[in-house]
Amino acid sequence: MSILPLLRERLPDDIIVTDADLLASYAVDRAAWARAGVPACLVRARSTRDVQDVVQACIESGTPVVARGAGTGLSGGANALDGCVVLSLEAMNEVVAIDPVERTAVVQPGVINNDLRDAVAEHGLWYPPDPASSAWSTIGGNVATNAGGLCCVKYGVTREYVLGLELVNGRGEIVRVGRRTAKGVAGYDLTALMVGSEGTLGIVTEVTVRLLPARLPEITVAAHFDTLAQAGDAIAGVARAGIIPSVLELLDSFTLKVVDEWKNLGVSSEGNYMLLANTDLPGESGEREARALQEVFDAAGAGFTAIASDQEEVDALFAARRLAYFALERRGPVITEDVCVPKAKVPEMIRRLEEIAAGRGVYIATVAHAGDGNLHPCMPLPADASEELQQAALAAFDDIIDAAIELGGTVTGEHGVGLLKMRGLAKEAGPEVIAMQRAVKAALDPHGVLNPGKVVETA
Amino acid sequence: MSILPLLRERLPDDIIVTDADLLASYAVDRAAWARAGVPACLVRARSTRDVQDVVQACIESGTPVVARGAGTGLSGGANALDGCVVLSLEAMNEVVAIDPVERTAVVQPGVINNDLRDAVAEHGLWYPPDPASSAWSTIGGNVATNAGGLCCVKYGVTREYVLGLELVNGRGEIVRVGRRTAKGVAGYDLTALMVGSEGTLGIVTEVTVRLLPARLPEITVAAHFDTLAQAGDAIAGVARAGIIPSVLELLDSFTLKVVDEWKNLGVSSEGNYMLLANTDLPGESGEREARALQEVFDAAGAGFTAIASDQEEVDALFAARRLAYFALERRGPVITEDVCVPKAKVPEMIRRLEEIAAGRGVYIATVAHAGDGNLHPCMPLPADASEELQQAALAAFDDIIDAAIELGGTVTGEHGVGLLKMRGLAKEAGPEVIAMQRAVKAALDPHGVLNPGKVVETA
Repeated sequence: MSILPLLRERLPDDIIVTDADLLASYAVDRAAWARAGVPACLVRARSTRDVQDVVQACIESGTPVVARGAGTGLSGGANALDGCVVLSLEAMNEVVAIDPVERTAVVQPGVINNDLRDAVAEHGLWYPPDPASSAWSTIGGNVATNAGGLCCVKYGVTREYVLGLELVNGRGEIVRVGRRTAKGVAGYDLTALMVGSEGTLGIVTEVTVRLLPARLPEITVAAHFDTLAQAGDAIAGVARAGIIPSVLELLDSFTLKVVDEWKNLGVSSEGNYMLLANTDLPGESGEREARALQEVFDAAGAGFTAIASDQEEVDALFAARRLAYFALERRGPVITEDVCVPKAKVPEMIRRLEEIAAGRGVYIATVAHAGDGNLHPCMPLPADASEELQQAALAAFDDIIDAAIELGGTVTGEHGVGLLKMRGLAKEAGPEVIAMQRAVKAALDPHGVLNPGKVVETA
Repeated sequence: MSILPLLRERLPDDIIVTDADLLASYAVDRAAWARAGVPACLVRARSTRDVQDVVQACIESGTPVVARGAGTGLSGGANALDGCVVLSLEAMNEVVAIDPVERTAVVQPGVINNDLRDAVAEHGLWYPPDPASSAWSTIGGNVATNAGGLCCVKYGVTREYVLGLELVNGRGEIVRVGRRTAKGVAGYDLTALMVGSEGTLGIVTEVTVRLLPARLPEITVAAHFDTLAQAGDAIAGVARAGIIPSVLELLDSFTLKVVDEWKNLGVSSEGNYMLLANTDLPGESGEREARALQEVFDAAGAGFTAIASDQEEVDALFAARRLAYFALERRGPVITEDVCVPKAKVPEMIRRLEEIAAGRGVYIATVAHAGDGNLHPCMPLPADASEELQQAALAAFDDIIDAAIELGGTVTGEHGVGLLKMRGLAKEAGPEVIAMQRAVKAALDPHGVLNPGKVVETA
């Protein structure tokens, strides 16, 4: 039996969508360049039971199912496969419970990251993972990709905040993995395995997250450097000083220029590289740490340093960071790379990026979570780019992956493998580890219906 | 071919041990009550290649291999199986590298936890996981059990500090999983899966750990309470005040009494329950947090509270905590339970423990990582205990597991499943999740030689 009649047997008509235009908009995430198929239909699940019905129907008919949240992914993990069911979890958007004593929240996968932050803030609590997409992306999507963000340099990524999951597994069963307690080692950590698995091992229907007490206001320290060596010394100097800033971002000269071309903030005239650091230590400790950061930056040869004294100044200092991506998009759809290298290798990686850009004749602007060694080299490619330029960009994409691996890094720090990084993952992990990954995939998705062909090739 | 000739072909004679007395001492860990088999031999690996040789010989001959570190485990995970090879990793005890800028260390599995702490301290760094066994237990063992400790309430458990692993997998291959970088989402998180898998999915031969800057000196706040309700209010009050102490330990009346019977510290006359909290915030913030903790304890009705002013006072306050286990062992071999419940349920769990002890006629003294909800009810059982008392203790063991699950908890917070918690895990996880765990085990240990029959039953 084909999939549509099976779904119509089980689900209300109004959550099954077959309109071609709507399907097209749900067939892709935000990964430029990634291939996408044509789905058989879209289901907008309203309950865990709906998700189970879809997975069971897909198992019965041998149909792939591609789960998605808000579609803000950057690796093609949520791109449709031909003939698949696209399963949207956006409508499952309830914050089920917030517990201020346990410091946990239970949420449905469609809850938007910022909405969760706002909800827990009312209880004096904080959910740290802060991907740049936090205004749009969902917790389910964040879990599926193990999303990172700016504050991860101090507070870690999504996996560190997921205690337990309810999910529909590859046998179409509703199961709970993980725990509600602070600690737990009861069996293999299927929760950690599910986080970052991009809907290929199970479809998450509820998430129990760990929270922190509301954070204190941050103090921002900014610095401009003429040379990459100076910026690199500053990054290493922060680590050597025993400081873990709550933010440590680097903007390269291409980024500063593209922002100034658009908004004329004057950031590109202060120096070629800009570092932005935050501290969120309490009271005098925070002020001391801000001064220590400034001293590290000065000692590394910064041409300009400043400690923001109020929110307005902070906003001004962060303006270039905030506007960078939008400024780049004015040149065309942006492919956002996501390599991560040991943090001492950030300057070397940026040097290689400059080399690759020059060698391949493409435009690469880099924003980096420098404190993590996580770089986002961005390549805007005009829609009308010549075949030659497109090929050059693809070649540069591969060069970047090769350089990151050579420097002891990884092909994806926080965006996930999806489609775009499958070749990179194979290079990074090697055939034996890929075989282990495929064995895990086959074990947990015995019918091969869960987003097949993403992350790792299936047999 | 049987295992011994296969090993003798591959390995130098001096690392293969068949002496019966020595084998017996390597056939058990520190889990009282857990069954242990008689191994065919012991191999003391000196290199990753040795480990690979053993695993390949075991695959060839269908022999189980049980890896072990110092043997301080408390769940029987390292107990020998009949006819197995016991593979000791104690001799692989080199700290391979410490990198102060990346804040990472690369260590062999036999490095003792405290030795790693000492080595990184010389570089101004800190390795947080601090199981009570840190003077003896190895990093490999800590990884195998995902060990916790006192400071985990603020800093998390071993898994949070393991970035990457070298291991010999179930196909006898040497592979690297994970990363050296701060972040990384390249494929399924096999590293997190290996941590806590007790040698059943792979044998770890090298560990890359994440470090923190050296910590600041702690301030200790102690309090005594007459009633469990007061102690419970204090624990919840700490959470409500938005404080994450760096230690929050609870000692119950049975523990205080057994310590006083031995050392007469006077701790049992101050109240029935004792809380010990630490703060490690810097300078004035730490002093403020210590006072806030004291206020929370006073508000909950503490009969006595104190802030230690120097190390001598800290040592005196922590004496009962430090001596508790040894005091209990004077009554006989101690079975140490390890349930973890939501932290607001700690008083209810302790009330149930008191009920279970009275109902079953057994002695249960409880030390709890109260800030985590992780309780260690300890049952000393004299070697000459009657059959009736032994049965009562076994029944109490099961009662404790049932109570923890009923309160939304887990059967093991930090000691692992091993043999003792297999039934508890099955109860907690349910048949569908156990089937997922078994599928993962079968996928990664296709020959069924890696510590089979531990954690989950194999087919």
